[in-house]
Amino acid sequence: MRHEQNPGYVHGYDAAEQARLHDQATTLEALLHHDSHFPDGGTVLEAGSGVGAQTIPLLRRNPGVALTCLDIAPSSLAAAQERIRAAGLPLPVFRQGDLRALPFGDAAFDHAFVCFVLEHLPDPGAALAEMRRVVRPGGSLTVIEGDHGSVLFHPEDPRARAAIACQVALQRAAGGDPEIGRRLVPLLRRADFSDIRVSPRLVHADGSRPALAEGFVRRTFAAMVAGIRDEALRAGLAEPAAFDAGIAALHRTAEPDGCFCYTFFKATARVPVG
Amino acid sequence: MRHEQNPGYVHGYDAAEQARLHDQATTLEALLHHDSHFPDGGTVLEAGSGVGAQTIPLLRRNPGVALTCLDIAPSSLAAAQERIRAAGLPLPVFRQGDLRALPFGDAAFDHAFVCFVLEHLPDPGAALAEMRRVVRPGGSLTVIEGDHGSVLFHPEDPRARAAIACQVALQRAAGGDPEIGRRLVPLLRRADFSDIRVSPRLVHADGSRPALAEGFVRRTFAAMVAGIRDEALRAGLAEPAAFDAGIAALHRTAEPDGCFCYTFFKATARVPVG
Repeated sequence: MRHEQNPGYVHGYDAAEQARLHDQATTLEALLHHDSHFPDGGTVLEAGSGVGAQTIPLLRRNPGVALTCLDIAPSSLAAAQERIRAAGLPLPVFRQGDLRALPFGDAAFDHAFVCFVLEHLPDPGAALAEMRRVVRPGGSLTVIEGDHGSVLFHPEDPRARAAIACQVALQRAAGGDPEIGRRLVPLLRRADFSDIRVSPRLVHADGSRPALAEGFVRRTFAAMVAGIRDEALRAGLAEPAAFDAGIAALHRTAEPDGCFCYTFFKATARVPVG
Repeated sequence: MRHEQNPGYVHGYDAAEQARLHDQATTLEALLHHDSHFPDGGTVLEAGSGVGAQTIPLLRRNPGVALTCLDIAPSSLAAAQERIRAAGLPLPVFRQGDLRALPFGDAAFDHAFVCFVLEHLPDPGAALAEMRRVVRPGGSLTVIEGDHGSVLFHPEDPRARAAIACQVALQRAAGGDPEIGRRLVPLLRRADFSDIRVSPRLVHADGSRPALAEGFVRRTFAAMVAGIRDEALRAGLAEPAAFDAGIAALHRTAEPDGCFCYTFFKATARVPVG
């Protein structure tokens, strides 16, 4: 089914990847979504909803909105549907389609939401322009993206840095930008949004937060980098032993005397009126 | 008077540096100190109080404590006294002395506070051991430090990174560690503190926060790096034109479409009872 999906999605689509996305969403939910609220009765588009990892917190926090989930991959939409049903939440409308040419009329939604998606797009500005088109004047856009350049850890280790650099290189080669978080303001400005506000969300794990060290450092970040091992080796970006040492060094930062920080960027903006 | 001061203090002691420290303290005060509270009636040691940049927010927030400020440089203690008097705040006790051999008896204080100091010490563990000695069992230590490895900005620019690297190299050559923030947990563990909690404080400046872009990016961070220009050139770490281009690139990140993030680490810990 790979051909139905976005071939440039560096993380792939297998079951382990879906479990990783789910763990990540659970661990980070409060940090990223405590303020993901939309007014009751509003229509909301989640663009690039994937397997529903962010859809579930959106639905939990916004029982009064009419949510539409769009993704290019039918298998992801099916997985999201299953996951949302399993969570006992009401199903949103699912729609297959391309972010660069949204299958909706102008001003069709009150709000749009996009999370961990722009980082994978060769032209995030085109997707933002489409979201601006389908949101009514006065409506809002919420964007959440990471930035791999924000990674800070102890003990420092060049092998860990090299493994992360493999991920960055692969994502860039696929046309994405894993350091897009810091660029949200200029991207939103260029797409003619107004009232742009960015709020960084720093995830910090250390010996005083063992659950986060496990849930975020080991099972989310290190697992994400480990997930591109084969592709990195095939691309000649790393030798197997060096790459594995880098993953081990990332796990080392989750020990009680270690430290790991990662910063997500959450932006809100409005479609100007008139 | 340089010989009376800490010769390893990379930022120097001149008036511009004092103004910079004051601007930094004002801009960052809420972020770093909103929870710098000590119980009324307690005795608090500020170790390495310098020119009083952190003393003023401490005094403002804790009118009911008996504060003692210790620094190795008499000129800094004099500057702090003048600044605190000008701010209309009650004067703390000033004491000249060395962090490695505090001129106080065991358990002399209820609490100790140290901010932007450990990063300059060749042996921060020795200073922590001394603070542990002079705080009573059950009393607390608060530590605030930066981490230059946390710097994240847009537009990315290797010349800006190179200028920052000069600062890091000089501070390391003087025996300090400008990336100490991420190491607070292991440092405090090794010094036998308990109940260690670390809370990162991310400063984020972008086009939606022009005051912070001015106050933190230009007048604090870029000014700090610019302040080591002569020393970096003398040490052969940079060419003048390249260094100046790096400073300009840092200022560029404070433009409306730029972004600049820096993370401070605030730790609290207790001296174990019994």
